[in-house]
Amino acid sequence: MTSFEALLATRTRHMEASAIREILKVATSPGVVSLAGGLPAEESFPLELMEQLTGSVLAKYGAKALQYDASEGFGPLREALVGHLAARGVYTEAAGIVVFSGSQGVLDALGKILISPGDIIAVEAPTYLGALQAFNPYEPEYVQIDSDDDGLIPEALERVLTTQRVKLVYVVPTFQNPTGRTMPLGRRQAVAAILERHGTLLVEDDPYSDLRYTGERLPPIKTFAPGNVAYVSTLSKTFAPGLRIGFCVAPEVIQQWMVIARQGVDLHTSTLGQALAAEYITGGYLERQIPRIVELYRPRQQAMLEALARHLPEDFRWTHPEGGMFVWVEGPRGLDAERLYGKTVARGVAFVPGKFFYVRQADGISTLRMNFTAADPETIDRAVGVIGGVIAEELGAGER
Amino acid sequence: MTSFEALLATRTRHMEASAIREILKVATSPGVVSLAGGLPAEESFPLELMEQLTGSVLAKYGAKALQYDASEGFGPLREALVGHLAARGVYTEAAGIVVFSGSQGVLDALGKILISPGDIIAVEAPTYLGALQAFNPYEPEYVQIDSDDDGLIPEALERVLTTQRVKLVYVVPTFQNPTGRTMPLGRRQAVAAILERHGTLLVEDDPYSDLRYTGERLPPIKTFAPGNVAYVSTLSKTFAPGLRIGFCVAPEVIQQWMVIARQGVDLHTSTLGQALAAEYITGGYLERQIPRIVELYRPRQQAMLEALARHLPEDFRWTHPEGGMFVWVEGPRGLDAERLYGKTVARGVAFVPGKFFYVRQADGISTLRMNFTAADPETIDRAVGVIGGVIAEELGAGER
Repeated sequence: MTSFEALLATRTRHMEASAIREILKVATSPGVVSLAGGLPAEESFPLELMEQLTGSVLAKYGAKALQYDASEGFGPLREALVGHLAARGVYTEAAGIVVFSGSQGVLDALGKILISPGDIIAVEAPTYLGALQAFNPYEPEYVQIDSDDDGLIPEALERVLTTQRVKLVYVVPTFQNPTGRTMPLGRRQAVAAILERHGTLLVEDDPYSDLRYTGERLPPIKTFAPGNVAYVSTLSKTFAPGLRIGFCVAPEVIQQWMVIARQGVDLHTSTLGQALAAEYITGGYLERQIPRIVELYRPRQQAMLEALARHLPEDFRWTHPEGGMFVWVEGPRGLDAERLYGKTVARGVAFVPGKFFYVRQADGISTLRMNFTAADPETIDRAVGVIGGVIAEELGAGER
Repeated sequence: MTSFEALLATRTRHMEASAIREILKVATSPGVVSLAGGLPAEESFPLELMEQLTGSVLAKYGAKALQYDASEGFGPLREALVGHLAARGVYTEAAGIVVFSGSQGVLDALGKILISPGDIIAVEAPTYLGALQAFNPYEPEYVQIDSDDDGLIPEALERVLTTQRVKLVYVVPTFQNPTGRTMPLGRRQAVAAILERHGTLLVEDDPYSDLRYTGERLPPIKTFAPGNVAYVSTLSKTFAPGLRIGFCVAPEVIQQWMVIARQGVDLHTSTLGQALAAEYITGGYLERQIPRIVELYRPRQQAMLEALARHLPEDFRWTHPEGGMFVWVEGPRGLDAERLYGKTVARGVAFVPGKFFYVRQADGISTLRMNFTAADPETIDRAVGVIGGVIAEELGAGER
C-alpha cells in the first residue's frame, strides 16, 4: 500500500492540528468540567424559533432556499446585515458585505488572497488561535505587537510597522479571545491614524461585541479608518454557531478577490442557513435575543470573577472583561500552566493553558484561558475551586 | 485612500473569477434561455419534505443541531453515508468518511494539503472547471491526459505517469461535467492497475452517478484501488445544492491532513445542514427521491438529444450520456464556439463554450457544453432550434 506522507505539500510544514484540539478532546470527556472550550451555551440558541423561521424561509423563498446561490452571499441576508452593521457604526450598502462560512471562512479568504510565503503578519500577544490556523497554510511569519491590559499598545504597533515590512495586522479589539481585553477609544483612534499613515491593512475581528455585560459599546476601528480595515464579524455567538455564518466589510479590491477565492473553496455559504439568518434579523428576533444571552452570561462571568477572587492566591491576576466569553488569568512567574492543567484535568477540571495563543509561546507559560459561558455559576465556582486547590497544593509542595 | 492591489499574494496570479462566471451572468439575464448553467432543477428538490425534516432534526438533536460540531463531520451523517457509499461499492466505516462544504470543500482541502507550487496535476481533456478553481491557488501545473468518447485513455495516463512527475490525477469518471462521458469498466480496472503500479493518488470525483437514465451502474475506480483513491461525492444533485454537503473517503494519512486543513477553512460544515442530510438518508427519502429526479431529467435529456439530431448539421457530433446533467457537442474544425455563443445569446439562448473546460483551451475551440436539467423539453427544443438556426446562417454566410 502506498504511503502518501511523501506527497504532502510543503505548506503542511506550517500546519498542525489545532494546538488545543487535544485539550478540547480531554475537556469534553465524561466527568470533566470544562472551562476550556469556546462554545456558546446551548441555552443561548433560539431553539424554539427554528421551526417557525424555517417555515417562514420556505414560504418566502421556496426552492430558492435550497438552490446554489451567489458567492457574495444571499441577497436578503446581505440586506439585513446593513442595519446590523450600521448599529455598530459600520456603514455600508448590502453590496459591500460578503457572507462567508463563519469568521473562519473570512479569515481563510483573506489569508489566501493576501499572504505570500514569508509575509509578515502582526498580531497581538496573545491572539486568537483560529486566525493563526487560517493563516498558517499560506506560510506567513508572525511578529507580536506588545500588548497590555488594554490590548495592543499603539506605540508598539508604530514601532513594528516602522521597522518591519508588515503585510497585514490582525486584531480582536473587543472582548478578545483569549484575554477578554478591550481596546479603549483613544487607542482605536490612534491605531486608525497609524494604519492610515503607513497605508497598512488591518483585519479587525469582532465576534463578541454584542455580548456586553457592563460599560458602553465602542466604535470599531473600521469607523476611524474605513479604507484600511477589513471588518469581520459573525452570528455564531448571537444566533447559532452551527450555521456557519460570518461576514466581512472590506476595501473593494480586497472584497472582489475574497469572492474569487471563496468560489474555489465552497462556492457559497449554505443558502438555507443564510436565509434563516436573514429571517432571524429582519423578524426582530436577533435584537430580542441579545439581551437574553447577556442575562444568561452575566451571572456566569460574575461567578467566575468571584470564584477567582475567592480561590486563587494573591499573586495571581486576571482580566475583568466588560463582556465576551473568557477570563484570562496570569499566574506568578514560574507557574507552568500546562503542568497545572495536567493536574487539574486529573481532578476533572479543564481550562486552556494560555501559551498556545501566543506566536511566541514562551511569553505565555504562566497564563490560563477560562471560559464561563458553557457552565452554570455553581459549576464554575466548584471548578475554579478545584483549580485553586491544586495551586495551593503545588505551593505547599514548594512547586510553582 | 490606500490601493491594496499591491498587497495581493503571489498565488493570486493563478486565480481568476470563474472563466464562465460572465457567461453564467448573461445566461441568467431575463429573456435568456439558459442551457449554460450547471444547476439542478428546482423541481428536483424535496421541498415539501423540508419542514418535516427540520422538525425531526430539532426533535432528535435539539440545540446540538445549532452548536459547533466536529471537523470530521456530524456523526449521524457519517453513519448514514456508510450505506449510501456501500451501495456504490465503496466500503468504509463512518470514521472513514469526512463531510465537507460541498465537493468544492473536498477539492480545496485536497489541494491545500497535497499541491506544492509547481506540482503537476494530470487531468482529463476537458475537465471540471470547478476543480481547477479549487486547485489553482496552490499553484500547480496541469498536464492533459488524452481522452476520447469513453473518457481518459489508460495508455495515455500510463504515458503521462511514466514521463512526468505527477503529484495527483483528477478524474470525473461517470457522466462527467462537462462531457457527460463515462469511463467503462475495463478502463476503470486498467486505471486502477496503473495507479497501483505507479503509486499514484487519484482524486475520483463522482457527483452524478445517481442520475442514471439508462444502462447499469459502474463500480467506482476506488473499488479497484482503494488505497490509491480519494473518492469524492456530494448530495448536491440528489438532495439540495444550497446545503453544501460533500464527502470524501481517502487513505488515512490524507484524510487526517484534510481534516487539519478544513479546520482552518470553516471549522466544520453546517451542523443543521448535515443533520437534515442524515435525516433525509435514514428516513429513506433519498432513495425515493432519486427515481423521481431520474424521471424528471430523462425526458429533458431525450428532448435535447432529439433536438440536436433535428437542428444541427451533419458535421456536428455530440455525446449520448447514460446519465448526468450535460451533453457535449463538437462542431466541425473551424467552428468558433465562443463566437457562436455571442450570436446565440443575442437571440436569447446561452450555452457554455467548451474551451473553458480545457487546461489547453485551444483544444476545445469547437466544443459546446449544454445543460438539460434546468429547462423543460419544449424549451430545450426551441433553444437548440435557435442554435441550429444561427449555425445554418453562419454556414449560409460562409463562416464557420
